[in-house]
Amino acid sequence: MPDNAVLVTGAHGFIGRHVSRLFNKNGWTVIGMGHGDWSTSEWKRWGLADWHPGDIDLDSLKQVRLPFRLIVHCAGSGSVGYSIQDPKGDFDRTVGTAVAVLEFIRNRSPRPSLVYPSSFAVYGEASVLPTPEDQPFNPISPYGFHKMFAEELCRYYGAYYGVSTVLVRLTSVYGNGLRKQLLWDACRKFQEGRPLFSGTGKETRDWLHVEDASELLRLAHHHASPQCPAVNGGSGVGASVREVLAEISTRMSRPGAPSFSNEVSKGQPDHYLADVRRVASWGWSPKIDWKTGFGNYVEWFLKEKP
Amino acid sequence: MPDNAVLVTGAHGFIGRHVSRLFNKNGWTVIGMGHGDWSTSEWKRWGLADWHPGDIDLDSLKQVRLPFRLIVHCAGSGSVGYSIQDPKGDFDRTVGTAVAVLEFIRNRSPRPSLVYPSSFAVYGEASVLPTPEDQPFNPISPYGFHKMFAEELCRYYGAYYGVSTVLVRLTSVYGNGLRKQLLWDACRKFQEGRPLFSGTGKETRDWLHVEDASELLRLAHHHASPQCPAVNGGSGVGASVREVLAEISTRMSRPGAPSFSNEVSKGQPDHYLADVRRVASWGWSPKIDWKTGFGNYVEWFLKEKP
Repeated sequence: MPDNAVLVTGAHGFIGRHVSRLFNKNGWTVIGMGHGDWSTSEWKRWGLADWHPGDIDLDSLKQVRLPFRLIVHCAGSGSVGYSIQDPKGDFDRTVGTAVAVLEFIRNRSPRPSLVYPSSFAVYGEASVLPTPEDQPFNPISPYGFHKMFAEELCRYYGAYYGVSTVLVRLTSVYGNGLRKQLLWDACRKFQEGRPLFSGTGKETRDWLHVEDASELLRLAHHHASPQCPAVNGGSGVGASVREVLAEISTRMSRPGAPSFSNEVSKGQPDHYLADVRRVASWGWSPKIDWKTGFGNYVEWFLKEKP
Repeated sequence: MPDNAVLVTGAHGFIGRHVSRLFNKNGWTVIGMGHGDWSTSEWKRWGLADWHPGDIDLDSLKQVRLPFRLIVHCAGSGSVGYSIQDPKGDFDRTVGTAVAVLEFIRNRSPRPSLVYPSSFAVYGEASVLPTPEDQPFNPISPYGFHKMFAEELCRYYGAYYGVSTVLVRLTSVYGNGLRKQLLWDACRKFQEGRPLFSGTGKETRDWLHVEDASELLRLAHHHASPQCPAVNGGSGVGASVREVLAEISTRMSRPGAPSFSNEVSKGQPDHYLADVRRVASWGWSPKIDWKTGFGNYVEWFLKEKP
């Protein structure tokens, strides 16, 4: 049995791929599971030693031959918009897979630990900014509710069964290769000469590069315990949508002045900002500030869609 | 289309059977769905016009031909002990079926309303007794967490999609035919001459007869709305386990002095007591006090197991 083997669910997803690669670089044997169509050479390039395509359920989990001592459960929906369109689909992908993973761990010997990438969406429209981990939950979308349910499941599997878990509440994760959400939309809209955006532009987000997020998810496993500690995974720096778009615009081959619909996006709070004191005490801080990260993103985008 | 048709999920269960019979008596066409093996003459005797055996999922729900304008979702686990033994099984039965029912309603035209029998277990070890509906949730068992998740699902399906629901948080429901929980155990133990009980005997419960509970679930449908109102379904009268056992003992053919293990039952709070002001304002109060109801129960038991 390899000393360090980890199962990454949702390994084909945006965060899952980066997490897999990072664990592999740190000497772990990485087993991937989930949906997504990629070739053997592709998943090997992302650091996987094995790939199990399919749903994340008890049957699939039991079929993994290689023993592993850690699960990073990256599977699940990652979209507020999708959760509004298809709440049950989002529920199944986020809550249904979480309970399957926890139940698998409960019945496994020896038991793997679990790192669960949760989301700032559990706080919803937080009354305190920057938001510390002890703020009450106030989700405002099905996605936020489902991440909250998944967290509660982790907590009670810890309290009642001694399953070791740790929760990392990620803010807005971005990076090269992300083909959805604000950055992707912004690059496309500037490129197409129609930079019209929903919202007011005054919304702020706390941006976290996927490589920083992955590093945090990796080191978080040292904190997994039945007490189910939770930590904010953010930069602690807020940037408004207007600032972000201005930054992107200057780097595009076809810059422009963004305009806003002033329609509020459903299920999206006005502001996200992480209180990062706890995560700093864990010895982690992000290495890539948002302006640098966005610059790299635009470069990548222009190579993709020149 | 019948003016008054209702789908009762879990119609073969203890509460489901009584709810079915009561709606039927009040002129409703009752369609039953769920698990349980009973004959056509049996389910007809309980007031069902049709019976759909099987899981409560989107496929089964879509297969019901008769149109109905109300769902009373009685399906789901009803046992703290079971939820501790098999948390995922309990999750699937309680939360999995709730999201299926809500999703079915969201996509149905016209949309049925939903009456959801929730549980006092959502309050857990409540800091205020009698406990009003605005007390924070503090579940202490997987069962309590799952009922809380089901409630949250009802709330957001109301808030985001306009689905009309109403929550009735039931206390300890009992009545003739219930072959589990304290009353059943007590009758059996006295009869067998070994009245040893877990706990201290000082635990208090708020006992509600299943006929009163059914009547409340029936009238609650008038309150269903996207605001998802919640009401306590209890008597507002507390009785300790010791009092209850003394009452049962005197009515048994073989009375005895109960003794207690003093071991605390996992997942069970010391006290449940409903604040009944809101439910009283809905025009409901229980008709059967616990001493009368327990007397009837013992009579029924002695006929069953003389």
